[in-house]
Amino acid sequence: MYRTHNCGELRMTHVGQEVTLSGWLQASRDFGSMTFIDMRDRYGITQLVFNIEDDEGLCAEARKLGREFVLRISGVVRERSNKNENRATGDVEIVVKSLEILNASKTPPFTIDDETDGGDEIRMKYRYLDLRRNPIQQNIIFRSKLAIETRKYLADQNFVEVETPCLIKSTPEGARDFVVPSRMNAGQFYALPQSPQTFKQLLMVAGLDKYFQIVKCFRDEDLRADRQPEFTQIDCEMSFVTQEDILNTFEGLTRYLFNTTIGIELGDFPRMSYDDALRLYGSDKPDLRIGMEFVELNDVAKGKGFPVFDSAELVVGICASGEAANFSNKDIKKLTEWMQRPQIGAKGLVYVKVEAGGFKSPVGKFYSDEDLTKWVEKFGAKEGDILFILSGEEEKTRKQLSELRLEMGKRMGLMKEGDFKPLWVLDFPLLEWDEDSNRFHAMHHPFTAPKKDDVSRMLNGDHETMKSLRADAYDLVINGSEIGGGSIRIHDRELQSKNFDLLGFTKEEAEAQFGFLMGAFEFGAPPHGGIAFGFDRLCAVMSGQSSIRDFIAFPKNNTGRDIMIDAPSTIDNTQLDELSLKLEEESSAAKE
Amino acid sequence: MYRTHNCGELRMTHVGQEVTLSGWLQASRDFGSMTFIDMRDRYGITQLVFNIEDDEGLCAEARKLGREFVLRISGVVRERSNKNENRATGDVEIVVKSLEILNASKTPPFTIDDETDGGDEIRMKYRYLDLRRNPIQQNIIFRSKLAIETRKYLADQNFVEVETPCLIKSTPEGARDFVVPSRMNAGQFYALPQSPQTFKQLLMVAGLDKYFQIVKCFRDEDLRADRQPEFTQIDCEMSFVTQEDILNTFEGLTRYLFNTTIGIELGDFPRMSYDDALRLYGSDKPDLRIGMEFVELNDVAKGKGFPVFDSAELVVGICASGEAANFSNKDIKKLTEWMQRPQIGAKGLVYVKVEAGGFKSPVGKFYSDEDLTKWVEKFGAKEGDILFILSGEEEKTRKQLSELRLEMGKRMGLMKEGDFKPLWVLDFPLLEWDEDSNRFHAMHHPFTAPKKDDVSRMLNGDHETMKSLRADAYDLVINGSEIGGGSIRIHDRELQSKNFDLLGFTKEEAEAQFGFLMGAFEFGAPPHGGIAFGFDRLCAVMSGQSSIRDFIAFPKNNTGRDIMIDAPSTIDNTQLDELSLKLEEESSAAKE
Repeated sequence: MYRTHNCGELRMTHVGQEVTLSGWLQASRDFGSMTFIDMRDRYGITQLVFNIEDDEGLCAEARKLGREFVLRISGVVRERSNKNENRATGDVEIVVKSLEILNASKTPPFTIDDETDGGDEIRMKYRYLDLRRNPIQQNIIFRSKLAIETRKYLADQNFVEVETPCLIKSTPEGARDFVVPSRMNAGQFYALPQSPQTFKQLLMVAGLDKYFQIVKCFRDEDLRADRQPEFTQIDCEMSFVTQEDILNTFEGLTRYLFNTTIGIELGDFPRMSYDDALRLYGSDKPDLRIGMEFVELNDVAKGKGFPVFDSAELVVGICASGEAANFSNKDIKKLTEWMQRPQIGAKGLVYVKVEAGGFKSPVGKFYSDEDLTKWVEKFGAKEGDILFILSGEEEKTRKQLSELRLEMGKRMGLMKEGDFKPLWVLDFPLLEWDEDSNRFHAMHHPFTAPKKDDVSRMLNGDHETMKSLRADAYDLVINGSEIGGGSIRIHDRELQSKNFDLLGFTKEEAEAQFGFLMGAFEFGAPPHGGIAFGFDRLCAVMSGQSSIRDFIAFPKNNTGRDIMIDAPSTIDNTQLDELSLKLEEESSAAKE
Repeated sequence: MYRTHNCGELRMTHVGQEVTLSGWLQASRDFGSMTFIDMRDRYGITQLVFNIEDDEGLCAEARKLGREFVLRISGVVRERSNKNENRATGDVEIVVKSLEILNASKTPPFTIDDETDGGDEIRMKYRYLDLRRNPIQQNIIFRSKLAIETRKYLADQNFVEVETPCLIKSTPEGARDFVVPSRMNAGQFYALPQSPQTFKQLLMVAGLDKYFQIVKCFRDEDLRADRQPEFTQIDCEMSFVTQEDILNTFEGLTRYLFNTTIGIELGDFPRMSYDDALRLYGSDKPDLRIGMEFVELNDVAKGKGFPVFDSAELVVGICASGEAANFSNKDIKKLTEWMQRPQIGAKGLVYVKVEAGGFKSPVGKFYSDEDLTKWVEKFGAKEGDILFILSGEEEKTRKQLSELRLEMGKRMGLMKEGDFKPLWVLDFPLLEWDEDSNRFHAMHHPFTAPKKDDVSRMLNGDHETMKSLRADAYDLVINGSEIGGGSIRIHDRELQSKNFDLLGFTKEEAEAQFGFLMGAFEFGAPPHGGIAFGFDRLCAVMSGQSSIRDFIAFPKNNTGRDIMIDAPSTIDNTQLDELSLKLEEESSAAKE
């Protein structure tokens, strides 16, 4: 038997008991005739005591142990003379009677502490050691708890968890698929799913009524900072529902998860149209912790002789209140430089300081105090506030101002830990016109239905009409992160076929790739819709962290490599032959 | 709003209420002035009534509806005059006031009933219709419930569910990997996991202590009858445990699952060594519902002049009691032919009928009644029983007798529905000597530890010694199906390295493929072990069904194809180029 208790379990009630514990040596301290060892496992840390006077040999042995050695000890629990109130087991210690080294350890390449001295690369290479660190281990445990509670809630609501296949069919739509060569079907490939979209719709056609799955999805993208080639979704679909039913169900799930896992009662879930989100925050995922809605100034800022504004399509700004009053000219200069970095690309940043009895602004010479008073009124600004104003081409300027707003939120300390502001963004356009490729893209995906009132316009309208179609598509945003999104789907063959037309599919392409789905719509497909939450992202947002990577036990790096196991790697020629494949270099070499 | 209630919900308490329901038309019947429609959803069937005298137009409309049309109706609940006691909603019906066709349906290619007229192929092509059939839908719902309860039990026992990666490293050990070409790392491949084995061990090194995951695994095998290229495991690992801890934990899980999902209180979980299982049942997964232990007859059957037995390595038999008494000579002849089919390959089948005052047997002329009495005593047979005896080379004969035993169990009706007999098979050999390839194979897998008492024999013994090593490896068998298996693992670098040696790895191969694991063992790896249950199989066994396919929403056929979506399929040349791959035919064509 390796243990009677774990390392987080012993309390005053155990004093006097003989116990056996196993765990890792976290730290040891020698004091004259005494040696103390902190022994750690997932559940906590327990202090062990060795006394030279009691057993000199045992104490000598204990003094030879290194960090991360795996030990089994037996001994008697006793009350500590100096208790450690920061530790659940801090009232007691174990006077060790016997000690066994279960496994030795080399010195770890970085410290196994909450704050470690290990850099990213070495932590990834020795991920199994990084995972011993409490903050990372707690992330993984939190993720597990969140999944359990998600399933509990959805199962209680009559959702059925159905596993959809991982080996599916490649479709050129959307992001790149990972493909899997088939040995038994030479020259053919499976694809790994980017989402179970078509399968969950088929489950609705099959009458499953309410489906969910916590499911791995795959995208072969050039990895940006916080993307992973494999990621996890809470994937859901419901039949006989309207948008309202779905919003209510997943608002319920979100409230439940926040409440049961981190003890947060979420407030309102306000709703905002996509158009309003762009107009007021320059983003379809605004962070509502910040405030600072955009105010348009065209009518009061143009035509006063300031050429930059006069020539701009849009003049728009935000008002920084409160803390902002402490922004010095130097701070503003730095902020301006930050906005001028190529990542953001603002030409400049105009400010107006609202001060006692007047304004301070570099554009003061173009605008009278009366002019600026009108600005201030539009913002509802008061003494001590600063207006920040950008101008230029409309879409670009809104994006830049959105970046500024977020940066100001950060600098002003408005993104408070434990403060969560959810938001539903609604009424997304159905289609997005892409000037470059001269074609429509699906704003959400090709299976999203137009709003009921837009159906006949979609079936009969002209090209321009298509740009104005709106969908019952919705995103859940929390603190500026997109947690999930979904839509009411098309369940009618004709409408689906029309949508593929609009997206530039030939009839043959649509049939070859999605014929099974359109076929299914002919056998009594119910009205249905759904949503998917990014599970990795949800974990990170609920924990107030910005990176998903430390919520994934074994993540890949930015080039898609697992540097711990060294994957991907080359495979045998036998394997390639069996798959009827050749590497390109190899076959060109053969031709030379 | 699509519905106020579902189709399985209405009872006498709802009589008089105005309700709205949506669902599929299961069946309709016209009787003079009345039309009845059974409307179906996942939750049940509700009877709708249309009356010509109330609303002629509506009734006419209802008479035009076809099977599987999707409808929304509103109406008033009333008590039925002739109640249907076989249906939960059978006390009531809805007098329909309004009807809307939400979607039409073509006539389905097979009937959507418990018993369908559709063959396998067509049911797979229209799997979304097959899934509407109650037995299949209930299988999928059962699977979901079983997963929920599995997670509940394990989470309550402090297990953490951790998602391990799907894109891992290919290793030539074991079955064939599915591989995934990496675009960002040209010429390199990921593999899909055959199991999360090394990752779950690393999680133990990481101190996660108790891990589980319900996880998709992948094997590129030539598919036998009831195999799938992707399948699901309940995968578990624990630290600081002995075999006993693991058996108890997963006996607990199994009891809990049977109890909560199908209301069965399982009896004992007897334990049997691998050697005993082969000796007594000729199989490492004996079905204990059957009885009929093997009895060896060498000492009483040889040397009496019957050349077949005299020249045999082993004479061994089973005794069929009770029902067996009804086996006519014709039945026995048929059974003999069944045994002589090439799949089994028995040369013949000797029987001895124990009758009032004597024996009947085709080998009677070689054996006196006194001889045969000794046989009967060995079996403990009584009047009315029949002994069935095989002979030949030992291993082959036991296998053949095992087949006969199972067939007799079937013919004698001993495999009763609702009767579940679990069994732990223990003490598997660590290594298996393969004459053909002249090398050892791991009986379980290369990470399985020898029993503690065998460690020094393994490190220091000679070749012959290796054949006698035993492992703390265990299988859970229920009703003759292997539900799961596992082992205590090696957690020591030297022992792991020795095991790779024995399995024929060079030092370089072992390091290249499993260096990360052996490296991890040097940083304080705890003693650990685990188990994995085949989840698809568990679903089928608990439901008393023999095929896993109908517990998988979207299964592949025997050539690994999904014939509904038509995958695998060819991919674009652009995709191949991006992956630096060529198809073999293509590149040879280019060379001609």
